[in-house]
Amino acid sequence: MERHIDQELKELNNEILKMGAYAEESIFKSVEALKNRDKELAKSVIDNDVNADRLELIIDEKCVDLIARYQPMAKDLRFITTGMKINAELERIADIAVDIAQRTLEIVDKPLLKPLVDIPKLAAIAQNIVKMSIDSFIKGDIELAKKVLASDSEADTLRNLIQKELIEDYMVKDGSTAPRAVQLLLIARFLERICDHATNIAEDVIYMVQAEVVKHHPEKL
Amino acid sequence: MERHIDQELKELNNEILKMGAYAEESIFKSVEALKNRDKELAKSVIDNDVNADRLELIIDEKCVDLIARYQPMAKDLRFITTGMKINAELERIADIAVDIAQRTLEIVDKPLLKPLVDIPKLAAIAQNIVKMSIDSFIKGDIELAKKVLASDSEADTLRNLIQKELIEDYMVKDGSTAPRAVQLLLIARFLERICDHATNIAEDVIYMVQAEVVKHHPEKL
Repeated sequence: MERHIDQELKELNNEILKMGAYAEESIFKSVEALKNRDKELAKSVIDNDVNADRLELIIDEKCVDLIARYQPMAKDLRFITTGMKINAELERIADIAVDIAQRTLEIVDKPLLKPLVDIPKLAAIAQNIVKMSIDSFIKGDIELAKKVLASDSEADTLRNLIQKELIEDYMVKDGSTAPRAVQLLLIARFLERICDHATNIAEDVIYMVQAEVVKHHPEKL
Repeated sequence: MERHIDQELKELNNEILKMGAYAEESIFKSVEALKNRDKELAKSVIDNDVNADRLELIIDEKCVDLIARYQPMAKDLRFITTGMKINAELERIADIAVDIAQRTLEIVDKPLLKPLVDIPKLAAIAQNIVKMSIDSFIKGDIELAKKVLASDSEADTLRNLIQKELIEDYMVKDGSTAPRAVQLLLIARFLERICDHATNIAEDVIYMVQAEVVKHHPEKL
């Protein structure tokens, strides 16, 4: 029999999915703006960030409200509190897309520094990792969450390579590239931070699922 | 009459204070390590980060446990859920101190780039703003939380000045400074991000207190 809270938890699920879709889209748009030197797109990412802020508040309120009205125990409670954390991570991801858009506006009028080194590749990893992390939460899928953790170290490595290339092959050889190279270096770091937030989500999911397993299987303690 | 939950909320308060003190100390140590070119101190910040991770988990568990056992309403519930968020912010602050320590290890053996531009000044703002944000939570003090928001824009401005100086006066003029200047630029950004986390804490506090006020004073809606 479906409990009344189940319907509300589904709605919460949907809201978090919406927030996740918004975060993914913002990353995509900010990187497209960078690749295509598209000022208007970069500006739209910045202007639309209020939507993410608003959605974060709505989800947060819904979580507190669900706890207050249903006084849920164990699994439901942990799902809701994990949802609150994931909500905050997603809002940060959307914020970082704004950072990327702002850096993009800084360099959009200046000559391109080679085809953006490996930033588009790192951006693709970031988008994928965010998607996986949200899926792992929605499905409570620990294996998928573990894949997120593995992808994060790939992103780390790529970020370091990009950084090394920008410093050694550009800034050191020709100091006049520094203002542009620094912006790209920051964008690479932003993308890697997005992956870190996805990792936080995945860790929260593992904790949510495993704490539950342990709770119901005291023999595992 | 003191309720039983009050004692537990006090304990939660104390744990969050402990986490806050830990975060403040880590910032302090990481910046001291940078200023004094102290490798051992930088390493100790990195090695001790497991303590922050452990404390974060303990606080998180305590919050979920308090909700499950007391099924608190209104003010207490909001205090606990805000506590969970602040806990996560403080853990991130401790993580950023680790980032600073790691960047410090990268440059500690290289010649100093002028006396660290205004990084020590920005570090002092960061430490102070974190302290204020924790106090605002513990006291539920909205005015103090608003001061945090004001200080954050000061940190923002200073970070931009440091960044500009490092790019224009160092990297552009002498590309060979780039490897060191980039590390300092990142450290300045880390310090500013610490201020952002403190701002998140302050915003959570304002929301916690004001949502409460509105709830009990529907005429204010």
